[in-house]
Amino acid sequence: MGSSEKTFRVGLVAPGTRMPPELARRAEALAQKAYGGRVSLHFHPQCFRHAGHFAGEDHERIEALVEVANDPAMDAVWFARGGYGACRVAEYAIPRMTEAAGAKAWLGYSDAGFLLAGLHRAGFGRVAHGPMPVDLIREGGEQAFLRGLGWLVDGDKRALEPSLLKDGLPEDGRAMAFNLTILSQLLGTGLEPDFTGRVLMLEDVGEYMYRVDRYFFHVTQNAAVRRCAGIRLGRCSAVPKNDPDFVLTEEEVARFWCERAGIAYLGRADIGHDSDNRVVPFA
Amino acid sequence: MGSSEKTFRVGLVAPGTRMPPELARRAEALAQKAYGGRVSLHFHPQCFRHAGHFAGEDHERIEALVEVANDPAMDAVWFARGGYGACRVAEYAIPRMTEAAGAKAWLGYSDAGFLLAGLHRAGFGRVAHGPMPVDLIREGGEQAFLRGLGWLVDGDKRALEPSLLKDGLPEDGRAMAFNLTILSQLLGTGLEPDFTGRVLMLEDVGEYMYRVDRYFFHVTQNAAVRRCAGIRLGRCSAVPKNDPDFVLTEEEVARFWCERAGIAYLGRADIGHDSDNRVVPFA
Repeated sequence: MGSSEKTFRVGLVAPGTRMPPELARRAEALAQKAYGGRVSLHFHPQCFRHAGHFAGEDHERIEALVEVANDPAMDAVWFARGGYGACRVAEYAIPRMTEAAGAKAWLGYSDAGFLLAGLHRAGFGRVAHGPMPVDLIREGGEQAFLRGLGWLVDGDKRALEPSLLKDGLPEDGRAMAFNLTILSQLLGTGLEPDFTGRVLMLEDVGEYMYRVDRYFFHVTQNAAVRRCAGIRLGRCSAVPKNDPDFVLTEEEVARFWCERAGIAYLGRADIGHDSDNRVVPFA
Repeated sequence: MGSSEKTFRVGLVAPGTRMPPELARRAEALAQKAYGGRVSLHFHPQCFRHAGHFAGEDHERIEALVEVANDPAMDAVWFARGGYGACRVAEYAIPRMTEAAGAKAWLGYSDAGFLLAGLHRAGFGRVAHGPMPVDLIREGGEQAFLRGLGWLVDGDKRALEPSLLKDGLPEDGRAMAFNLTILSQLLGTGLEPDFTGRVLMLEDVGEYMYRVDRYFFHVTQNAAVRRCAGIRLGRCSAVPKNDPDFVLTEEEVARFWCERAGIAYLGRADIGHDSDNRVVPFA
């Protein structure tokens, strides 16, 4: 690496739940090992704050997000982790963001989907659903971390969800991805993006199958969602045991509701709350 | 009781989860004890069916609901229990209902809220949120059961949620009540009722406080909900322990989101997943 090469600076915030500092240190060391001085991670101190459930009070999370978003020294904003809380800050933070924020690449998933949706609605062109530094707690998490970072820094197309590639090249503007629960909870709010013509990829974690079924009812019976090009089902992991057994699998549930709603069911998507989670740009 | 007095016939169906037959027998015995021959309960055999999670397959639950709804011999329809599944039948059953169905009194809560909402949207004038026979499993459940039956049979105003009474008399057409989760999951679907000018009473059970917070985000950020006259908070029971502690109570959560949305917070409502659950007519 030549010393003339500009360092790619990634700003990190936690709009929901707190990030353990030791995980941030691991992320920094891993980025250093993989990229040397070409990439630097900048965890905003807000990531480590405590306020009940949240990584700091609402106003602290709003201020940190706006600060990192608008900082011209940062090339990208990476959500350090999800948890819960982005829906409390999005409405206030997004309107305060400048062109510097709109020019950055943005990456995250799970609860951060509230922000991905709201940013896309606000016209941000480089928003993507994909791995976060918190994935380092998972088995194989380094792989997920480096996949996310590779997309942020170099737009690495090997990071992309495979159905987004045609003849080995990415097709832009085709998809959106969300946690199913988060999508359900942002429909009808000021964060709802335009689904028209998009392939909608949906994953979930830790939800009973009867809830997955109910979320699919809610999402597929929505007129705005019905303008999408189709649904792909990501992984539904850590599903608690239903008593009695729900009988239907998550794919049967997805097919059932898509058929009922007249939405094309397009098969599986390689996304989920796991280390294999691929990147889905909304652009 | 004179033999000339007409028997009030209550038809029971289970659009979601199965009812244990022994609970139905207890309900029948209790109605007999309280009303003699003046009231009779008619559990449709569908209540006792098994199909995975549900009290029979979707088509069986749809047929049973339509049959009881349209039966001119029945004076009321009482949902035997909630669970999960009403959202799978409502869309097909409601359009098949006749004037005989619209003339009946309807009562239930929890998952049955999907149907209460859809029936009200379809113009049914005697729909109410309140106790169901399954409440007999609760401590003090007989009281809840008899309160529900008292409203169905005689429109007993002592069964009503207290804020609905003015000078001891019920004020009609003022309120609606829902389980918070169910309300969230029907917004934007074909079951969404008109909230304009209504006091919206919301209760929940078994949800983490961060989810109650997220549901309140979803519900209060909805333009249709914002046309309501205000929100009253019922009981949120069996809330699993949040780790870390959520700090905010359910009432603080409700006040926070109401204030943010410009919806009047009107105080508590005497409804919940418990034996004290009062009746809230939507009429």
